[in-house]
Amino acid sequence: MNPILVEVARGGHVESFHRGAVVVVDADGCVIQAWGDVERPIYPRSAVKPLQALPLVASDAADRFGLTDAEIALACGSHAGEPLHVATAESMLRKASQDGSCLECGVHWPLSEAVTRELAGRGQLPSTLHNNCSGKHAGFICLARHRGLDPVGYVKPDHPAMREVTKALANVTGTVLNESCRAIDGCSIPTFAMPLRSVATGFARLGTGCHLTSTLTSAAVRIRAAIAAAPFMLAGLGRFDTRIATAFGEAVLCKCGAEGVAAAAIPGQGLGLAIKIDDGAGRAAEVAMAALLRRILPGPLADHDELSRSVDVSLHNWNGMVVGQVRACLPESAH
Amino acid sequence: MNPILVEVARGGHVESFHRGAVVVVDADGCVIQAWGDVERPIYPRSAVKPLQALPLVASDAADRFGLTDAEIALACGSHAGEPLHVATAESMLRKASQDGSCLECGVHWPLSEAVTRELAGRGQLPSTLHNNCSGKHAGFICLARHRGLDPVGYVKPDHPAMREVTKALANVTGTVLNESCRAIDGCSIPTFAMPLRSVATGFARLGTGCHLTSTLTSAAVRIRAAIAAAPFMLAGLGRFDTRIATAFGEAVLCKCGAEGVAAAAIPGQGLGLAIKIDDGAGRAAEVAMAALLRRILPGPLADHDELSRSVDVSLHNWNGMVVGQVRACLPESAH
Repeated sequence: MNPILVEVARGGHVESFHRGAVVVVDADGCVIQAWGDVERPIYPRSAVKPLQALPLVASDAADRFGLTDAEIALACGSHAGEPLHVATAESMLRKASQDGSCLECGVHWPLSEAVTRELAGRGQLPSTLHNNCSGKHAGFICLARHRGLDPVGYVKPDHPAMREVTKALANVTGTVLNESCRAIDGCSIPTFAMPLRSVATGFARLGTGCHLTSTLTSAAVRIRAAIAAAPFMLAGLGRFDTRIATAFGEAVLCKCGAEGVAAAAIPGQGLGLAIKIDDGAGRAAEVAMAALLRRILPGPLADHDELSRSVDVSLHNWNGMVVGQVRACLPESAH
Repeated sequence: MNPILVEVARGGHVESFHRGAVVVVDADGCVIQAWGDVERPIYPRSAVKPLQALPLVASDAADRFGLTDAEIALACGSHAGEPLHVATAESMLRKASQDGSCLECGVHWPLSEAVTRELAGRGQLPSTLHNNCSGKHAGFICLARHRGLDPVGYVKPDHPAMREVTKALANVTGTVLNESCRAIDGCSIPTFAMPLRSVATGFARLGTGCHLTSTLTSAAVRIRAAIAAAPFMLAGLGRFDTRIATAFGEAVLCKCGAEGVAAAAIPGQGLGLAIKIDDGAGRAAEVAMAALLRRILPGPLADHDELSRSVDVSLHNWNGMVVGQVRACLPESAH
């Protein structure tokens, strides 16, 4: 039974609460702290995008096509479909002599409700470029083109570009990724169930380069620098991953995924962090990650306003009254 | 520890799961079946709108202003902001010589994403009439006007109209509702924490009239008939409460509320049902309620397609591929 990590309060009562598992590991995959079952296989979903972007950089595709920091960061991001995100995905594709018609991620309205209304207000429909995964997919297409491959079918497990992505993911997380743990993600690429501990291990290695080839280590350095230089590309205006990257720069690389997953690298301490909320709630994954960072980071960083704001979020009603809180309650003692 | 009621599967693994409490009671409030802790105080939120609408009918306000079935059903509903919902709320207010400027529920974009985009596409902004609670609030204003009261401040606990609503809610649920259990709902009216068992008791009495005055019993009959006659007003196109009311007519009155609450009356069996998902997930409350109805209703009703569809909902990704399921796993044995 996983512990309660986050409470949602209203008036004098706890209205809802979220259980989950939390793990902190070093780059050897050794558990430093854990709450709950961190060995149960979970789907890391978009939380591992920064790991899935490693081949884009390690293959030299990023340099060959002259990708900017913003473009590399977008390849690691789940963006809100804001105009700059769309333009950046389009630019990546153009550099590989492709366009949005090559993207196999499907179409959805922008994650940002405001951007959705703006788009609808102009009488427009969304395209594949607005899909929150379009940067990741544009990165896969750059990788495929760099390898001289036809990008068609790049989302399928057996496409050589996707095999290269999966191999890197297995390598950095220290897992065996095969059909038995494979499912299909929202954007149609494979997602592999793995222990939460392995997700954290991947982030510890992304942050340190330990146990990685020198090529992957260099790619990890470049990815961390790109995200720190272009935090907006990781998520979007006001969103959690962007706020953390803006506040901490290269000191913390945090990436959330669907169904209540969050992962982070703390290079300065050689640590990887991962959280899975049992019920899949994103609101809880963010608040729990903020609480975990406050617990793990050294004093001056732990005291950052961004974290104190993010561990206790006020709920406002439609008249702007404060009616409750979403607040962290990570138990004191791990096991 | 509440049991797991709903699983979210992807590929061969359970990705997320939802715990919660479930109770079935008779109109005496006696527990017929229960799963989990049904005595912990929970906020019923919008699930009790049909109970909060009782004074509107019992006071004769509904007859005095000539409210239609659709208008009474809207007073019990959490609507999607579709044009017919907005027009119906406006009509209720007009009958009481008021308009949308009297509504104190606040403004939000329509719950229906499609309707939001249509509104934005016309260059329009939402009004108080689009608030999912505008029908309930229009009902409160009708009640206040019928009583000769100034409606200003009707959302406050001490306004005489709101006191009448709270008194009816306490009466039908068999609870004492005071400041110690009071919080503020999304639409600014009070919401009172009460045991899940009490929510179910209120619905058993709404469905049977047992333990109610003859005036409240008549009001309950009228409310059940109105919802059965105008199920669209309870929620909106394709939404759960509307689907259940469309499928079952007066045989089942089901109403969901924010943070994973669902309640239902089964008049033919004299039962009231209530569910609270621990983590507040609406997706789980709906699937669990469908499973509970299938368990509780007599054969021919239990076999209704609407329930078999609703207990195992396919998840599609952005390319329309089936990637998983949200499925009920209500344990066999209650306690």
